[in-house]
Amino acid sequence: MADAVTAPPAGRATIGDSEFDRDSALVPRETGVYDIDLPAGWTIFGAVNGGFLLAVLGRALGDALPHPDPFTVSAHYLTASRPGPAVVRTQTVRAGRTLSTGQASLFQYDDEGREVERIRVLASYGDLGALSDDVRTTAKPPAFPPMERCLGPEDGPAPDDTSAIAGRLMLKLDPATLGWALGAPSGKGEMRAWFGLADGRDPDPLSLLLAVDALPPTAFELGVSGWVPTVELTVHVRCRPAPGPLRVSITTRNLAGGFLEEDAEVWDSTDRLVAQSRQLARVASAGFGG
Amino acid sequence: MADAVTAPPAGRATIGDSEFDRDSALVPRETGVYDIDLPAGWTIFGAVNGGFLLAVLGRALGDALPHPDPFTVSAHYLTASRPGPAVVRTQTVRAGRTLSTGQASLFQYDDEGREVERIRVLASYGDLGALSDDVRTTAKPPAFPPMERCLGPEDGPAPDDTSAIAGRLMLKLDPATLGWALGAPSGKGEMRAWFGLADGRDPDPLSLLLAVDALPPTAFELGVSGWVPTVELTVHVRCRPAPGPLRVSITTRNLAGGFLEEDAEVWDSTDRLVAQSRQLARVASAGFGG
Repeated sequence: MADAVTAPPAGRATIGDSEFDRDSALVPRETGVYDIDLPAGWTIFGAVNGGFLLAVLGRALGDALPHPDPFTVSAHYLTASRPGPAVVRTQTVRAGRTLSTGQASLFQYDDEGREVERIRVLASYGDLGALSDDVRTTAKPPAFPPMERCLGPEDGPAPDDTSAIAGRLMLKLDPATLGWALGAPSGKGEMRAWFGLADGRDPDPLSLLLAVDALPPTAFELGVSGWVPTVELTVHVRCRPAPGPLRVSITTRNLAGGFLEEDAEVWDSTDRLVAQSRQLARVASAGFGG
Repeated sequence: MADAVTAPPAGRATIGDSEFDRDSALVPRETGVYDIDLPAGWTIFGAVNGGFLLAVLGRALGDALPHPDPFTVSAHYLTASRPGPAVVRTQTVRAGRTLSTGQASLFQYDDEGREVERIRVLASYGDLGALSDDVRTTAKPPAFPPMERCLGPEDGPAPDDTSAIAGRLMLKLDPATLGWALGAPSGKGEMRAWFGLADGRDPDPLSLLLAVDALPPTAFELGVSGWVPTVELTVHVRCRPAPGPLRVSITTRNLAGGFLEEDAEVWDSTDRLVAQSRQLARVASAGFGG
């Protein structure tokens, strides 16, 4: 799979024509309202991945708002999403000259067909292509081993049948953050991985929304096992990513009272910091809810 | 003013009976709807401070939701707030066992009396008092000079009449982050200050919402002058703060394309990390809007 990225075959998927694009595509029902059948391919432990959901909502807002690109998206996760029918309802909160603000919610249906809200977001959109080239950054890419020394699910002894999403991603974890998988968590709240889509589709602002919530929880390296549900996740997209694999680095500094933050940075193949995110997550025992 | 904190006089204000509490108090109009007259005392350059607005919305949600304390609050700033009448409208999105999620907006009125939305928030609330004492943190308080070696507006040559809020706060800036005020910005995106309320009121979760957006912009130390309006600000309150002054440390790593992030940490007098925030702000020329 590393080969697929470093030497893309002719059959490599493209932005707009890939698993990710097809699976997150929305069917307009009326102005600002979209239907989608959430696919089973993006689940982990049976729940649809939070980053994938963010991309679905981000796609809806990109259609509904006058500006194309997510600049900052704040999501509050309410209940776990399952594969199956869902509806996304958007609202334009404010349409400005350089930025627009919108709101979106994704609902599914209970046994009586009533809508149950899964996730609600507030987001400000702009045009990444219109930003100035002025970059004054002190941020440096974290140290990453080369991709061929990092490890993915395909390098393990057996397929992981709890994580359907693993088959959709190119995820190569830095061995230094894999202690948890060997029964020896490092005690450091760090997780790093090379990230791409399995079919070779290049990154874009929507796939950045996926990338920030696609790695195993940092809590695993802190010796915490089990479900770590996201309460809230905010992503800033800072730049349109260049083609090629991304590097995602996540750090946790403060696990306290059963909650922890996860700070993610996403770097593109040209060493640009293309996205920053932070989430508040809860260390829960097995199962969802609360 | 430092004396007021280190050796509080008998007349020191208390939580619930202070300038901050009186000025952010809300008058219930109907269920979940509150009126407030935004006071001129919390403005800078004529606009009501974003952290103060967040505290107003936080107070409304604390009243409207079944849980008392803000755990994570995401605010998108739409238009600048001015002193005068405003209405806060809240909605309970989900009421869970340990967390509730709500939404709130603050509106003011245009010349025809129509509501104009200033700021919208999504927030998840819980009970900080119910959290476990389990703390596994690698975060360390940043190095701060003692308060008596830090500098506030009262140490300058003349009162700053553009910043009414300065009179409401005890803000003592680390001289290492004050180069901008001397015409020699450090070039580092850092701002650090001791923080309290001028009347000696101790911190609580609501005043933490104020604290994360009360310092001068880090952009000043990057050589950028003028208005740096917040697009989005998310705060995580991690612990009920102990009495005594807070330390607020803000860092910016990535100024690019006219946008920057500001990451704030707030530490209490017992060296607990009590709040973390991140905002996306825009480097604008003088004036608001966009």
